[in-house]
Amino acid sequence: MQEIVVDSARLHDFARVLCEKAGLRSEDAEQMATLQVQTDLRGVHSHGTRALPGYLNLVLNGKMNPKPELRIVTEGPSFVVVDGDNGIGHLASAFAMETAIEKAKTTGIAAAGVRNAGHFGAAACYAIMAASNQMVGFSTTNTGGASIVAPGGAEAVVANNAMSYALPTGGGHPIVLDMACGVSAWGKIGTLRMYGKPIPEGWLIDDTGQPTSDPDKGRFLAPAAGPRGYGLAFIMGILAGPLSGGLMACNKSDDPSEHFFFALNIASFTDYDGYVEEIQQGIGKIHASKTAEGVEQAYLPGEIEWNHYDNYLANGIPIHVDHLRGLAGIAEKLDVSICWDWQE
Amino acid sequence: MQEIVVDSARLHDFARVLCEKAGLRSEDAEQMATLQVQTDLRGVHSHGTRALPGYLNLVLNGKMNPKPELRIVTEGPSFVVVDGDNGIGHLASAFAMETAIEKAKTTGIAAAGVRNAGHFGAAACYAIMAASNQMVGFSTTNTGGASIVAPGGAEAVVANNAMSYALPTGGGHPIVLDMACGVSAWGKIGTLRMYGKPIPEGWLIDDTGQPTSDPDKGRFLAPAAGPRGYGLAFIMGILAGPLSGGLMACNKSDDPSEHFFFALNIASFTDYDGYVEEIQQGIGKIHASKTAEGVEQAYLPGEIEWNHYDNYLANGIPIHVDHLRGLAGIAEKLDVSICWDWQE
Repeated sequence: MQEIVVDSARLHDFARVLCEKAGLRSEDAEQMATLQVQTDLRGVHSHGTRALPGYLNLVLNGKMNPKPELRIVTEGPSFVVVDGDNGIGHLASAFAMETAIEKAKTTGIAAAGVRNAGHFGAAACYAIMAASNQMVGFSTTNTGGASIVAPGGAEAVVANNAMSYALPTGGGHPIVLDMACGVSAWGKIGTLRMYGKPIPEGWLIDDTGQPTSDPDKGRFLAPAAGPRGYGLAFIMGILAGPLSGGLMACNKSDDPSEHFFFALNIASFTDYDGYVEEIQQGIGKIHASKTAEGVEQAYLPGEIEWNHYDNYLANGIPIHVDHLRGLAGIAEKLDVSICWDWQE
Repeated sequence: MQEIVVDSARLHDFARVLCEKAGLRSEDAEQMATLQVQTDLRGVHSHGTRALPGYLNLVLNGKMNPKPELRIVTEGPSFVVVDGDNGIGHLASAFAMETAIEKAKTTGIAAAGVRNAGHFGAAACYAIMAASNQMVGFSTTNTGGASIVAPGGAEAVVANNAMSYALPTGGGHPIVLDMACGVSAWGKIGTLRMYGKPIPEGWLIDDTGQPTSDPDKGRFLAPAAGPRGYGLAFIMGILAGPLSGGLMACNKSDDPSEHFFFALNIASFTDYDGYVEEIQQGIGKIHASKTAEGVEQAYLPGEIEWNHYDNYLANGIPIHVDHLRGLAGIAEKLDVSICWDWQE
């Protein structure tokens, strides 16, 4: 038995209490719990509550500020730069995206940078906030030091930055793309190791620049689709980097991160109902489209994750026991009761 | 001898005269020539002057308006939607990006949609305009009907939309990413056929959803990096589609296109000189980084194209004879002298 099913509402309360006990303000703890459990519900465990012990240990070790005073560094009609005061990245990021959404309501589009903050979890969380406001949302982040090679490179020069777009559909879940610019997320490689599965050919690069499937020799990641993933990683690392007052990946170690967002108000550009009608027609056609033998249906971007969401919300979230052991460890440290029964 | 070297200034004059003779206003003809020859100089022949006969034949056949009256459909502090009056896409696109650049100077970021216009050439052209104004530029386009399958699909549901980012570097050429969301551009497949080269495995999909390397059986393109290229194609097709007043790829045939742009003013977000200093340091590190055996150096996104540019600007552009035959055909139709010597 590698997985235990955990009720999402209980997991939310558990995560919230953990954050509070670690010293976060109660409203910030609530927000962290919401975003991390939303991510687990979407089946993206690498960026959900599995990451919580890491964040909270940084707080407990004094490396991250539990009660950051967010500060607007500069702002104008359609932009804002937020200093995260070395707090958990989620807090400054949610504030930055909310500010962008407010500005975009009157100007059409607004962008936000975040500096001096920690990891922000799943990029999709912030893009989805915009989509919930009938806007196109975009989110990207500079994930610490360089870990991806240039095409033909034998040294990491760009980071495995994530980028996410979300688009409202006028009903039901938004369209969501949340992708790493490397051929995989490091978290996914960690998950494969945790489940004892092999690492696919071509994902990892050794220190001579050759591909390897041995996770002990693979020091770097290959970019997704060669020059394209490399280019996207480079550009995301500038948006969530020097543009927001930070460094390029090749100039930094695992320092505080930068994040970048924009929200675009659909009703500024076109009639929102007409937009929805067109999207709904397109969704219908894609769902009805012909597939290869053995493939059940064509999915929309993010749809598989939303199917997890609906299923896990109703029936509980299956969580790997190693993930739960990590949560149990931090729970013990903070004297919080776990919210699942060990059934091994 | 498959290629003939053509002087870029002579090619520019030739292209300008062709456009004028086809009925374009002289300033529009000048702009078309500049953008198409810039694209040839960057070595992207598929989107350079090779495309000119196609555009001009649409004009000559009455399918495209040679003298469009561009019209602002709606605008606000940080957005504009432009109706291209069924003209060549370059004209409305350049105007839309210029408008976004002007708005972004005061608001920080501005976006522009273009509807009711033709193909706009290389997406990079418009992103580069923003970079020339110390801004981040973004450009995307909905390239006609659907030609890419969803993962596992046996029917095209999204278009092979292009997307481009450009970033200023404070001196020298900007960083440029210009990518198709499919595993390749259709134009590149055309170029491979023209040079008699094989189509790489996994690029083409037949009508049962299986990969094929036979260009006669390959009816659809695979998305780049699977769900990522599919997701990006989907989202670009909404930005340059329903958001700008158009249709989704799966709902359209090869109708007028939509385009979407944004320009982001770096100096709104951070000190421009500090941004440049950080980028320059990063560029130095990437250029000095270790590469795999047999790989000369790591290149920046777009750098290989800029190396072509510098070389071709000084020494002329090597152009395939089939490309030149296409230009000679339209030149004959318009009674314009060609600007190269046939040396076959």
